[in-house]
This record gives sequence, structure tokens and C-alpha cells, in this order.
Amino acid sequence: MSEAWITLATNDNYAQGALVLVHSLRTAGTTRKIHCLISNEVSAPVRKQLEEHFDDVSIVDVFNSNDSDNLRLIERPDLGVTFTKLHCWRLTQYTKCVFLDADTLVLRNADELFTRPDFSAASDIGWPDSFNSGVFVYVPNNETYRQLVDFAVTHGSYDGGDQGLLNDFFSNWRDLPSEHRLPFIYNMTAGAFYTYAAAYKRYGANTKIVHFIGSVKPWHGSAAVHTGEHFQQWQKIYHAHVNHT
Amino acid sequence: MSEAWITLATNDNYAQGALVLVHSLRTAGTTRKIHCLISNEVSAPVRKQLEEHFDDVSIVDVFNSNDSDNLRLIERPDLGVTFTKLHCWRLTQYTKCVFLDADTLVLRNADELFTRPDFSAASDIGWPDSFNSGVFVYVPNNETYRQLVDFAVTHGSYDGGDQGLLNDFFSNWRDLPSEHRLPFIYNMTAGAFYTYAAAYKRYGANTKIVHFIGSVKPWHGSAAVHTGEHFQQWQKIYHAHVNHT
Ligand SMILES: O=c1ccn([C@@H]2O[C@H](COP(=O)(O)OP(=O)(O)O)[C@@H](O)[C@H]2O)c(=O)[nH]1
Ligand SMILES: O=c1ccn([C@@H]2O[C@H](COP(=O)(O)OP(=O)(O)O)[C@@H](O)[C@H]2O)c(=O)[nH]1
Ligand SMILES: [Mn+2]
Ligand SMILES: [Mn+2]
Repeated sequence: MSEAWITLATNDNYAQGALVLVHSLRTAGTTRKIHCLISNEVSAPVRKQLEEHFDDVSIVDVFNSNDSDNLRLIERPDLGVTFTKLHCWRLTQYTKCVFLDADTLVLRNADELFTRPDFSAASDIGWPDSFNSGVFVYVPNNETYRQLVDFAVTHGSYDGGDQGLLNDFFSNWRDLPSEHRLPFIYNMTAGAFYTYAAAYKRYGANTKIVHFIGSVKPWHGSAAVHTGEHFQQWQKIYHAHVNHT
Repeated sequence: MSEAWITLATNDNYAQGALVLVHSLRTAGTTRKIHCLISNEVSAPVRKQLEEHFDDVSIVDVFNSNDSDNLRLIERPDLGVTFTKLHCWRLTQYTKCVFLDADTLVLRNADELFTRPDFSAASDIGWPDSFNSGVFVYVPNNETYRQLVDFAVTHGSYDGGDQGLLNDFFSNWRDLPSEHRLPFIYNMTAGAFYTYAAAYKRYGANTKIVHFIGSVKPWHGSAAVHTGEHFQQWQKIYHAHVNHT
């Protein structure tokens, strides 16, 4: 039985997030493997840095035409970058995985996520009947991968990203038993919302995973749109362990 | 068997919302009764207007010391206004109710809500493991009312309002079967959020009840913080049926 955290970085920018994330997972004392999917756009030195810190780094090659499972994706190069995340379903060397966006930060040990059933995710704050696709528990499976690719090519995605696609594919998520709905503390989307302040004061201290959603990422260096506390924690790890310059 | 929509207006301002709401319910062709709780702060002419349009209007008197069920609340006058909403549990002339905040607007018939089990509510967008207390399905019950008052006086509310209190009281809501989680289309909190645009485009057309949360209400006359479309619909009803000046 081998379980792993999976993240994805298709370029050197997102790789900065992945490097902070892997440090945060180590600090939190995870007992699970940590695996990074990259594309060949990641530069050699950054790839080396990733290889030093992750248990495994593997290249996702969306456009490899020798890969028959990928054939339908190859016919639709426009979907390439958006749906790279789907490749995590092919990591069948693991019996169960938790996918984490590269813009997440683990604040404390969250290994209990591996006891959650396939498929589990937390509500999205924009439309809470949907899940946010930045953190999810799943079982790798080549058949699921093929179905996802088929679905992607046939239906596209209502938001142009993996979140819209995955919500359409796992469209019964809302009505699954509650084990499939991860508590919000496992995907606490940083931001400022109406009832947020009081609820955050009440429940926020239990937060285990923060997610810096939106177009401004912590590696852009601005705390403007993210709550200072978690942004600062991200920056601290970044300057201590990732970028010493 | 008698079922009813319940709303609350403790003053003439919120009564404007209640008047728009009752019109929207009639236009949507509800077959259920519509009942308004008011306090004695509502002026005589506004009260008359409410009585013309609601099936029933009743006065909630938090500070009536002849009311023994209320005794503990009376000892805590600071909780008075915040917890007036709890009085809806005393409307035992109805077998099932749907409470609607006075700042909600019914866009189309939503009578199917009465088939939902006690207690049902929709996720709050600020902390989606909590429910928003602007729309909920419940069964009036004097014992529940007493327990709620006891709980309120003993624990207070983490956000100072009924939402914090009700979430602590119905603390197992998140893990109840999915029938208890109302789809977001029954309490669509108007606003602008990250994933909102795409999800709204996808699901928004199904919206049945809009909720103008926050300190700026549609009767304040400014569309600044609310999506134009629903704000305009509110204004249209208001000027056609409530305030002809
Ligand atoms: O150019 C990109 C865009 C996205 N991603 C990966 O896909 C995830 C989802 O994208 P993002 O976090 O930017 O979306 P958001 O969470 O803001 O919706 C990222 O965290 C990365 O893991 C990537 O590697 N390269
Ligand atoms: O002074 C007040 C405050 C609130 N309310 C009632 O309590 C509900 C909840 O308050 P509000 O809608 O202002 O809270 P929000 O939905 O913005 O959190 C209102 O819709 C009204 O029905 C009221 O009658 N008088
Ligand atoms: Mn993300
Ligand atoms: Mn309200």
C-alpha cells in the first residue's frame, strides 16, 4: 500500500509554489510520499531543485502521440494545459492520493485525508454546491483517466478549467454521503468574504490547508489579496528553503 | 395541514423588504400561507400595509414578561433584537414552515421546499461548512424554541447574530443526509466572488431565491454591491407595488 500527495507545476512559476508546498508537508511530518508532476517547460535547474525535495518527479507529456490513452487530448491542443491535472489519475503506483494545487500550503499534518473515500473534495466558496478542485482525495485509475479525457473532449469545461470539468464529471458529489465533503479547513480559500470574519475567528484556528486561489499568487510577492497571516507563512518558507537570494 | 412562508421585520426599513418579498411570492404562485412577524417598532401605516398583503401578521414581543418561555431572553435584553428570529419556532399553527429573511426575493415558485426535512438550509459562502440562516425549512415547536432560547442565553452567538447561534445549535447540519442541504439556488447570495462568474453562468439561470446579504440592502437604493439584474427586479416590484411615490 503506497499513498501519496500529488501536485503539479507546468512551469517555473508554479514550481515555486510546489517547492513551498513540499516543505510545508515535510514540516507537518507527513508519512506519505510526495510526488510532483511537471511539464517539459520547467527549466533544468528548477527541475533539479524539485527532484531534491520530492520523493518523485515525473514529466507529464500531453502531446506525446505514442500515448494512445492521450489520443483524444492530442486532437485538442487547446485543452492541453487546462487538463494536465487529469494526469494525476494515471499514477497507479499509488493506491490512494491527495491532489494539492501548487498554490496550497499545509499548516499542520493532514494525513487523515487518506482515510477519506474516493472522490472527496471541499465546497467552493463561489458556488458551494460545487467543489473546489485545488484539494481532492482520489484513487488513481487508468480507466477513470480515459473517461475523464473522453468527457473533457466531448463536453469541455464550463469554466474553461479543471474545476468545471471535474464538477461535471463528478456531478453527484453534492449528494454523496458527508465523508465525501471535506471540511473547509482542508481547503481554506484565503480571501475576504461577508461572514468570513466571524466564522474564521470561530473555526479558522483549525485550518490545515490554505489555498491561495485567484490570479495573484504568493510567489508574485504581493499580500494585497491574501490574508497577511498565511501569505507571510508562505513567504517565510520560500525565503528560508526555496529561494535564498 | 397548514404550511407557511415566514418572514420578519422589526422596523419600517425591513418591512419594505418584507413587502417586496410577499409580492414576489404571490407572483410566483405559491399555494402556501405567508406570515410576517413584526415588532411594535413598525409604524401603524406600514403595519396596515403588511396586513393587506400577508395572510397573517403577528407581533413578536421579546420583552413581554408575562411570557414564561421568554423569561431567560428577558434577562438578556442585549440579545433581544438579534434573536427575534427564534420566535418563528413558536408558530405552531403551521405544520411546516420556510423562513425567509426580509432581504430575500423569490424569482420563481419554490413550493417544493416544503417537502424538505426539518432542519434544512443552504451553505454559507463565507464558510461553506456553515449554513446561511436567511432561508431555512423547519417545523415549529415550542420545545425547540425553549431549547434555542436556553442555548442562546447560555452560549451566545459567535457572530453576534442568529446565524452563529443556529449553526452552533444545529451543529450536525454539515453531516446530515444531503436532503438537508438546500441547493444554492434557494439562497443565492448576490455578490461577486472568484469562481462565481462561470458557475453563475452555468447554474444561475435556475436561481429561485436571491438573498441580498450584507449591510447594503436593496431598499437603500444603491446597486453598488448587488448584481444589477436582481437588484433591478427588486426595485421594479418595490416601485410597482410597495411605494408608488
Ligand atoms: O500554468 C499553470 C496553471 C496551473 N497549474 C497547476 O494547476 C493548478 C490550478 O491552477 P490555479 O491554482 O492557478 O487555479 P486557482 O486555484 O487559482 O483556481 C495550480 O495550482 C498548479 O498546480 C500549472 O502547473 N501551470
Ligand atoms: O433590524 C433588523 C435586523 C434584521 N431583521 C430581520 O432579520 C433578518 C436577518 O438580518 P439581515 O438580512 O440584515 O442579515 P444578513 O442576511 O445581511 O446577514 C432580516 O432579513 C430581517 O428579516 C429585522 O427585522 N430587523
Ligand atoms: Mn489553486
Ligand atoms: Mn438577510
